[in-house]
Formats: sequence, C-alpha cells, structure tokens
Amino acid sequence: MTFMEKLKHASQTNRSLVCVGLDPELSKLPECVKSKPNALFEFNRAIVDATADWVCAYKPQAAYYAGQDADAQLKMTIDYIRERAPRIPVILDVKRGDIGSTAAMYAKEAFERYDADAVTVNPYMGFDTLKPFLDHADRGVIVLCRTSNPNSGDLQSLVCEDGKMVYEHVAVLARDKWNYNGNVALVIGATYPGELRHVRELCPEMTFLVPGVGAQGGDVEKVVEFGCDATGHGIVINSSRGIIYAGKGEDFAAEAGNAARALRDHVNSCRE
Amino acid sequence: MTFMEKLKHASQTNRSLVCVGLDPELSKLPECVKSKPNALFEFNRAIVDATADWVCAYKPQAAYYAGQDADAQLKMTIDYIRERAPRIPVILDVKRGDIGSTAAMYAKEAFERYDADAVTVNPYMGFDTLKPFLDHADRGVIVLCRTSNPNSGDLQSLVCEDGKMVYEHVAVLARDKWNYNGNVALVIGATYPGELRHVRELCPEMTFLVPGVGAQGGDVEKVVEFGCDATGHGIVINSSRGIIYAGKGEDFAAEAGNAARALRDHVNSCRE
Repeated sequence: MTFMEKLKHASQTNRSLVCVGLDPELSKLPECVKSKPNALFEFNRAIVDATADWVCAYKPQAAYYAGQDADAQLKMTIDYIRERAPRIPVILDVKRGDIGSTAAMYAKEAFERYDADAVTVNPYMGFDTLKPFLDHADRGVIVLCRTSNPNSGDLQSLVCEDGKMVYEHVAVLARDKWNYNGNVALVIGATYPGELRHVRELCPEMTFLVPGVGAQGGDVEKVVEFGCDATGHGIVINSSRGIIYAGKGEDFAAEAGNAARALRDHVNSCRE
Repeated sequence: MTFMEKLKHASQTNRSLVCVGLDPELSKLPECVKSKPNALFEFNRAIVDATADWVCAYKPQAAYYAGQDADAQLKMTIDYIRERAPRIPVILDVKRGDIGSTAAMYAKEAFERYDADAVTVNPYMGFDTLKPFLDHADRGVIVLCRTSNPNSGDLQSLVCEDGKMVYEHVAVLARDKWNYNGNVALVIGATYPGELRHVRELCPEMTFLVPGVGAQGGDVEKVVEFGCDATGHGIVINSSRGIIYAGKGEDFAAEAGNAARALRDHVNSCRE
C-alpha cells in the first residue's frame, strides 16, 4: 500500500484527519516517565497506545531526537508504531533539502534506516534535490509551501513579477512538475487560513499537511472550511504539544488520548 | 575565538581558502579501509591527517552519517579534528530549517551534541527559524543563497516585482537583518559565477561558502575572480569528492593531501 492509500485508509477507519506530532523534550516529560531509561521512547509508546484509535498519522519530528542524542529512540518509536498500529502511517518530519547525491543519502535515512511512510522536504533548492525522494513512488513527499511560523512570509510571500507569490509557485510546481508519481503533498500552516484557501483553489486534489493548530494558535474551523477538498478530506491536521502535553501527571497518556479524540471530534463536527 | 576569527586565522596560517567536505560513502571507500570497524571515521581520520596543513575548514555533510546509521562516527570525526587540528574550524553541513522551538533543538544538535563551529541553514521558512542559530554569536550560520545544483533556479531565480530575484532577497536579508551578531555567511555555488559576482557586489564584506568545484564542475578561476572580497579573502571553496576520492588505493590519504594542496595552490595562483 502506498503512503497515500495508507493515509486514506487510516483516515476512514478512525474517521480522523488528526496527526499527532511526537516531539518529546526530556525536560517537559511527566515526572513518572522522565527518569526511565529511553524516556522519550517510553513517553511516545504511552502516547501511541492512548491515541491509536483517534488519528490518521503520526509525525515524529527528527530534531527532538537529533538534538537529544536519541536517534535510537526515534527508530524504536517508529518500530513500535509499526507493531502497535500498523495501519497508521508515519511521517518523518525532517524538512531535508540538499544536492542530488546528498538527498539520496537523506532518502535512505528516511525510507530505509527509519522506514518512514512519508517525509517532509524543503523546496528551496529545486527539483533535482527533491527527485531522490519523489522517485520512491510508494512513499509520501510532503513539500513545505506556506509554513505556520511568524516570519514564513520573508521569502514565501515575496511577490513575483507574474503577480504570484513564491509559495504559489511552489504549489504549482508541486502540482504540475513534481507530482509525477502521485506522492506529493504540501505543508500549509493553519495560522494562514487565507493562504490555505488559496492553495486549495490552486490544487483542488492534493493532500495538505496542516500544522499550527494548538500551541501555535491556528483555528480548526477555518482549517476545515478552507483546507478540505470537495469530498471533505485532503487534509492532515497536526497537533504536537497540544496533544502530547495535554496532561502532566501519571495519567498523561489518557489525557493525550482525550485531547486527540476531542480534536478529532471537533474537526469532524466542522466537516458536517 | 568566534567561527569567523577561527576561519580567518586558519586561512592565514595555512594560506588556504580550501575546505574539505567529509562526505564518505561506505561503498566508495578504498578496499583497505572499507572492512575496518568505524570505516567512515577511519577514512576521515586519514584524510584529516593528510590535509590539515592545506585547508581552512572541514565540512562534514550530516546526510552521509544519517543515511548510513553512523551518527557516532560523525561525532568521532569532529572530536578527532578538534584534537588533531584544533585551529581548523568545522562546518556541519545540515541545511536545517524549522519553526523556532524545533530550530532550537537543531541548534542544540549542531552546537552542543556535535560542537561544530558553524552550521548551514535553509532560509525558506524565514527569520524566526534562523534566530536560534544566529543567537549563538560565536558560531557561524551559513545561509543557502544560490546553491550549486542544476535546478537551484526553480525558486532561487524567480524574479520578484521589484526586479530582484529570490536569492538576491536572501543576500540582502542576510546582510541587513540576519547578521546582527556578525556571524552570517552565504552559500553561493561555484557553478553560477555570474550570481557569485552579483552577490559579491551586494555584500562586499560577507563570507561566502562556495561548493561546486571539482565533481560539480565549477571553475576555480572564476570563483576567485568573482567571489573574493577586496582583500583577496572572503570565500571558502569547498571540494568533497574531488579531494577525498582523489586516490582509490592504499595511498588514498596521500592522494587526498596532494589534491587538497593542489587546489589550495591553484586557488592562490588565481589570487596573485
């Protein structure tokens, strides 16, 4: 099954457009987990156990493992999702972008070493730097388009001489040139609902990964209204801190489960 | 000593503008190294021993370690450079770019876990995603501007409504907004000498990291003519494959040393 098929299937089975970002920071973990060996993994395991029925994807953020010298716990986390929730796809959030020979190494990291179903990539360096990922037809390649952070407009909103902004060029390139295997999706931040609506108009059939609800303040109702495709699907709404840190005590996993379920239900109520 | 001071000092001591890219791929290593434990590190160690007098920087490319499940050997390599050639700065080539909280984790990876002197970053997501790196005033932050690969123009050469291309906006933002600690440099590919000349005009005093000579085909004479600042400095010319794979036999390290010295001398002859 390809990433796109797996995502659709998980989304239908769990009636969910919600993705949980697995971005554990040791200093923020509940006391009952913090002192365990492999604490990041133990935390993730509990979160996965509690949320597997309410989500359509998991998205571990590689920086949290790289920055905490915990690459092995990233691998353990992905392996655990494969075992516990094999139908839920894993998006490895790495935002890679490098020249062809180097990008091939990064594709190997994402798709062989970690065996992720999809990867996030940065388009600044152009097509040949994305190709080593795109050529893996069964894996998803999620291209940064209009990101959720405050200064994302510095480059992404520069207006080109044809009147289109840089992020619109990315959307059109992704739609017309880079999606030759049907495995491309776009990142559009929930914090920019106008841009989300606009990219949906440009790309009526593409899938969007939408971060920025929860801690970053994006509005779920607008994301659903502006982001969904004509069938009421086509978006994956990511929440990281809003779900994984929903509780701070011994019941943190149950609280995360409740938060994931509540976000799922909120999203679904907006779709009706 | 800051990265910029260390770079200047190494460049003067070794009379060199050459950086060696440490991008070892197991399948390409000489037979005499390939079967050793920690082969990537053993290869790098021999290369460092043979080149330390001819270079102003080393640039390990993180993808080669991430893709080959060899993070520990990246750490060993950087630690070895510290011991063997403590005056030569290490640029960790990672091209990171992510939202603030995540970028802080990547800064921790680069500057604490690996203790690199400088890091490469991708500007597509804007200022707040660079700030966690920029705030380390003693470390270098090398921003992708006009990269050496064939399709780098897809986004970088889009012409904006003010007549400037996207990469020119990056150069000007780097010069005027992001360089508040004096620790910013730019990546400009040797394969685009016209753009190199143009960015030198825009940024007469900034340092450029110039990849793309050697295997990628960039012209050293043009790089020196168009890239150097008014004092004949201001560029770091990287060669990876052209140096580390100069020889394939038991004398591979000596061959790499010869190649590094030859490139240094060629660059210097163009400066006279």
